[in-house]
Amino acid sequence: MKETSGILSDRIKHVPRSFIREILKVARDPSIISFAGGLPNEQLFPLKQIEQATKDVFADHGTEILQYSNSEGYLPLRQLISASYARRQGLNVPPENILITNGSQQGLDLLGKVLVNQNDAIVVEEPGYLGAIQALSLYSSRFIPVPVHPAGMDIEILATTLEQRVPKLVYAVPNFQNPSGISYSAENRSAVAELLRGTQCLLVEDDPYGELRFSGEEKPSFYKLAPKNTVLLGSYSKTVAPSFRLGWIVAPDWLMEKLIIAKQAADLHTNGFVQHILHRYLSTSDIKAQIDKISKFYGDQKKLMMASISCHFPSAVEVTDPEGGMFLWATLPESLSSVDLFNRAIHEKVAFVPGDPFYINKVHTNTFRLNFSCVGGESIENGITRLGCLIKSCL
Amino acid sequence: MKETSGILSDRIKHVPRSFIREILKVARDPSIISFAGGLPNEQLFPLKQIEQATKDVFADHGTEILQYSNSEGYLPLRQLISASYARRQGLNVPPENILITNGSQQGLDLLGKVLVNQNDAIVVEEPGYLGAIQALSLYSSRFIPVPVHPAGMDIEILATTLEQRVPKLVYAVPNFQNPSGISYSAENRSAVAELLRGTQCLLVEDDPYGELRFSGEEKPSFYKLAPKNTVLLGSYSKTVAPSFRLGWIVAPDWLMEKLIIAKQAADLHTNGFVQHILHRYLSTSDIKAQIDKISKFYGDQKKLMMASISCHFPSAVEVTDPEGGMFLWATLPESLSSVDLFNRAIHEKVAFVPGDPFYINKVHTNTFRLNFSCVGGESIENGITRLGCLIKSCL
Repeated sequence: MKETSGILSDRIKHVPRSFIREILKVARDPSIISFAGGLPNEQLFPLKQIEQATKDVFADHGTEILQYSNSEGYLPLRQLISASYARRQGLNVPPENILITNGSQQGLDLLGKVLVNQNDAIVVEEPGYLGAIQALSLYSSRFIPVPVHPAGMDIEILATTLEQRVPKLVYAVPNFQNPSGISYSAENRSAVAELLRGTQCLLVEDDPYGELRFSGEEKPSFYKLAPKNTVLLGSYSKTVAPSFRLGWIVAPDWLMEKLIIAKQAADLHTNGFVQHILHRYLSTSDIKAQIDKISKFYGDQKKLMMASISCHFPSAVEVTDPEGGMFLWATLPESLSSVDLFNRAIHEKVAFVPGDPFYINKVHTNTFRLNFSCVGGESIENGITRLGCLIKSCL
Repeated sequence: MKETSGILSDRIKHVPRSFIREILKVARDPSIISFAGGLPNEQLFPLKQIEQATKDVFADHGTEILQYSNSEGYLPLRQLISASYARRQGLNVPPENILITNGSQQGLDLLGKVLVNQNDAIVVEEPGYLGAIQALSLYSSRFIPVPVHPAGMDIEILATTLEQRVPKLVYAVPNFQNPSGISYSAENRSAVAELLRGTQCLLVEDDPYGELRFSGEEKPSFYKLAPKNTVLLGSYSKTVAPSFRLGWIVAPDWLMEKLIIAKQAADLHTNGFVQHILHRYLSTSDIKAQIDKISKFYGDQKKLMMASISCHFPSAVEVTDPEGGMFLWATLPESLSSVDLFNRAIHEKVAFVPGDPFYINKVHTNTFRLNFSCVGGESIENGITRLGCLIKSCL
């Protein structure tokens, strides 16, 4: 049997190919300085503490750490997440409204399963996180892009969109967005929340980077501003260990009940062994110090990159100035294509992600993403210098 | 916002509630002798060896065991799975055609994503595994039940079904099926394979229990009999550790490419940390001895249960005689309902799973499932005695 037999589902045909995957393959060449990655810096992972937590879990537990467990997730871990919301953001999130998922990526899949019909409209940020579009495109192909600016979502366009037809979901990464690095201002959040309140539209607030703030002040969560219209996604992938695939969804009772059914159908439950280990790690280590360490490191890296950019990029290139996270976003003069720049940059042994995959059906964009979490200081200087020269030669 | 707002997807409404979940809640009372469970016996988990493997992984690897990894899964683990197919069953399964999933349950979800449209027909065994129906019912609600008998699938009904309209998938558990414990005979497999060959229908051969054989001879895999029409699902949940959520799909190139996209969309990749641990465990421990230990234990338990049944059940009750796995299946005289028996049995402090949830849209069935992996010898004797008395009193 062959693919040409037409046996494939219609929905899989809607899923965009991962252009980033192809780019990362090219950028894997060790002689290339790559700003294309999206990985947290693994030198900052708390390996020793995780090793200790694992030892302790073996010492204190029996075979039950290897047995099947419940679909909702390990209750003591959900209690820690609940306590962390209360402490950090003053949010009241009962453990019963937290479902442990395989990273926040699975949260998107489960929301798609439970909420989205084929013709439902889904608002996504533009530029926006490709993984969310991938996950949700298995359930609907009606994506409505709403531009994001340095201060947040374009309120006028969002308002017009909501007037035309209430979308099922609005997907947003309000803190240090991937790919742009921007954060929604307090005013912007209030305006978005005001538009959603009382509608039948749920805002999915994905917040993988929120704790990795290196400057500025924390802004209120949508969960505070429009609690009835907000579903939260969280993750330990950027603060502890991505390989653990531990994230969570916060949802109201009526939705949680269905999400648990979808989780059972998807994979019964999330790995129980690592839930125990993570819980032990969080209970016995100074997670705040861990997060501060990462934030400081990424902040220093970003400063270095910004300083280098202001020296070497022509002034016609605009860049965002993130207050946290792992990415910044560059906009070339309109006449230039970032894919063309990428193809030339590879020859100069420097890589980044061109903007195209972060848009719905746009090509030849003039934007690109730069990652600053993984590249050493000297390489940042060298890579940005090379990129600056290239851009100048294109102008 | 409330559920009554109609915001839920149509597909989630098709997913059957987990009746078993409700039953397991009732059966959790420690004073009840429960044959209702479906768990492997955790006393047989190789806890010490897993602990050692974990130590070794920490000693030999750095932070990369906590980093993101590829969507296909850890290559050395896929190589071990490939080698095991060659050694045990003489099957040629290249590692490139193996995708690591969160248990074989996720394999079903990914196959649904990639292959199934809303109106596609899916053949399922009757009685059959509820988890498969749950997973696939998110993608289609057209299930066509085909009865299974002690020797396998009903060939006449399958032939008629295939004549009427080629289904997209046939889902089968040919070894020690859940719930019935039956295995397809060699002849039955050949007949099923013959019907499928040359059609556009894929047989999903789910084999979580295949290695847990305590009597009889291994039968050929559908992957051998109809390789172009077979997708294999495998799992370490019944042989090593269910909490690890490690299973796999074997699929041809054209399908693998799409499954990887679906896996990325679903959760990026399977937990890399436990893939390392499992790989180390499998490379350094005697997995055959581990499987033999489980098989012998379950075989002894089954013998005990069968002996007790032949003493205490009236002869009008038929039971299957499994050659492996964890379950056997009882059929009451037609006038009796197993749900009624269950309600009475709970008062006598003994539990099992009534047959209803293993059928598509059937209630008041006269069948039920008995699990023999987890109950102690004395409890088997006591529980079966009580059940036998109850059944006699109903006749």
